[in-house]
Amino acid sequence: MQLTQAQPFPYNFELKSSALVIIDMQRDFIEPGGFGETLGNDVSLLQAIVPACQAVLEAWRRARGLVVHTREAHKADLADCPPAKRNRGNPALRIGDRGAMGRILIAGEPGNQIIAALAPLPGEMAIDKPGKGAFYATGLHELLQQAGITHLLFMGVTTEVCVQTSMREANDRGYDCLLLEDCTESYFPAFKAAAVAMMRAQGAIVGWTATSSHLLPALAALPAQPQHC
Amino acid sequence: MQLTQAQPFPYNFELKSSALVIIDMQRDFIEPGGFGETLGNDVSLLQAIVPACQAVLEAWRRARGLVVHTREAHKADLADCPPAKRNRGNPALRIGDRGAMGRILIAGEPGNQIIAALAPLPGEMAIDKPGKGAFYATGLHELLQQAGITHLLFMGVTTEVCVQTSMREANDRGYDCLLLEDCTESYFPAFKAAAVAMMRAQGAIVGWTATSSHLLPALAALPAQPQHC
Repeated sequence: MQLTQAQPFPYNFELKSSALVIIDMQRDFIEPGGFGETLGNDVSLLQAIVPACQAVLEAWRRARGLVVHTREAHKADLADCPPAKRNRGNPALRIGDRGAMGRILIAGEPGNQIIAALAPLPGEMAIDKPGKGAFYATGLHELLQQAGITHLLFMGVTTEVCVQTSMREANDRGYDCLLLEDCTESYFPAFKAAAVAMMRAQGAIVGWTATSSHLLPALAALPAQPQHC
Repeated sequence: MQLTQAQPFPYNFELKSSALVIIDMQRDFIEPGGFGETLGNDVSLLQAIVPACQAVLEAWRRARGLVVHTREAHKADLADCPPAKRNRGNPALRIGDRGAMGRILIAGEPGNQIIAALAPLPGEMAIDKPGKGAFYATGLHELLQQAGITHLLFMGVTTEVCVQTSMREANDRGYDCLLLEDCTESYFPAFKAAAVAMMRAQGAIVGWTATSSHLLPALAALPAQPQHC
C-alpha cells in the first residue's frame, strides 16, 4: 500500500506488518471534568479528533490490522512512578491522588479508561505505560517484534508529549512511523504544529505524516479480509 | 545548589548526584566539510555554541562532576543500524558510506570523533548510541544508576532531535533534567525554540531550561574539590 500524499514523501506499508498505535485516548485527558481539564486545559481541542480517530480505527479493524492502545497509567502502589514525576512543581493534585474520576493516572480507575468511542476490543493490545513514551518499561517492542511489525501508524494525544516521545522511541528501534495529523492533538496547537514539522523534517528524520483522508481510501480498497480464527 | 532563574521554576541539584550530558558534539555534525554540511546544513550555527559548551565543561570538570559524552555511531558492520534508518528517503550518501571524514556515522572514523574543544578526558563516559536517544541500546541508564545520578544537565546537538529525544527518555526514567539553552543548537533555529518551549511547558513536563550564565557562578561558588584517587 502506498500513501502518495504523505509528507515529506510517499509512505509504503503492508497491512500485515503494520500496527495502528493509539496513544493515551483516556478519559482523564479527553473528557470534561477529568484530570486534564482540572489542570486548566481546554479538552474540547482533544475531543475534536475523536470522530477522525474512530473512522480510522473502524476501517483498520475491518481490514484486520493489528491495533495497539496505550494508557499513561501507574500501579496502585506507585512503584512505577518516579518521585521526580510525581513531585515536580509541587502540584496541588499529584498522581495517585483522588480526583473527579478516581485516583489520577492509576490503572483501573475510571479516569484511566480509554474513552468509549475508541475502547479496545478483546484481542487488541492495551498497554499501560509509566512514561510518556510507549516503549519504556512496557515490553511493546518485543510484542511488536513477535508479531512481525515493521510499520507503525500513530494517532492520539498529546502530539508533542506522549505521541512524539513514542514515535521517537519507535524510530530509534527501526520502525517506519507515520503520524495521522488530523487524528492527533495537543492542548497547545502551536506545539502540535511544531512537533509535526520537526518529525517529518530532514527527510522524515522521525517519520512521515498524512491525513486520514489519504489512509481511509487505501484501506477501503483492500480486498475483504477473512475473519481470524 | 539552586538555579533560581531556571524556567519554568528554580532547579535544585547536588553535584554528587548530577551528570553533565553532552550530546553528539561530533565532527561530522559540527565541522565544515563533514556529513552535516554535505546535507546542506549551515554548521556555523552549531559551531557558535562551542565556546559556551567549553566553559561549562571546564567548570564542571573543575568541580569534579560526572561527565557523559555521546556520539551517534554505528558498528562497522552496521549490525546496529536499522535498515529503516539507513535507507530512508533513498539518500545519495548512506550511513556507512565513505564521506569526506571517513565512513559516515561509524564508530572510530575521523568524522565520528568529538570535536577537539570538547574531547573526552580519560575516565569520562563516552557512549556510542545507535539511535537519536542516548538511552536506547546503550546501557547509559544502568551506568548512571550505579553512579547514584538523579539529575542530568544537557548540552549538545541538535536540540529538537538527539537532545530532545534523550531528555524525554531520561525524564521517563525519573531523572530531573535541565537543558542549557545557550549550549544547544539546531540547524533550524525555529525548531530549537519550539523544542525548548515544549519541554519546559506544563510545569517542566520534560524538564527545566537555563543559560550557562546562571550555572557558571553556581559552580564557581563551590568549595575547591579534592582530586579523586
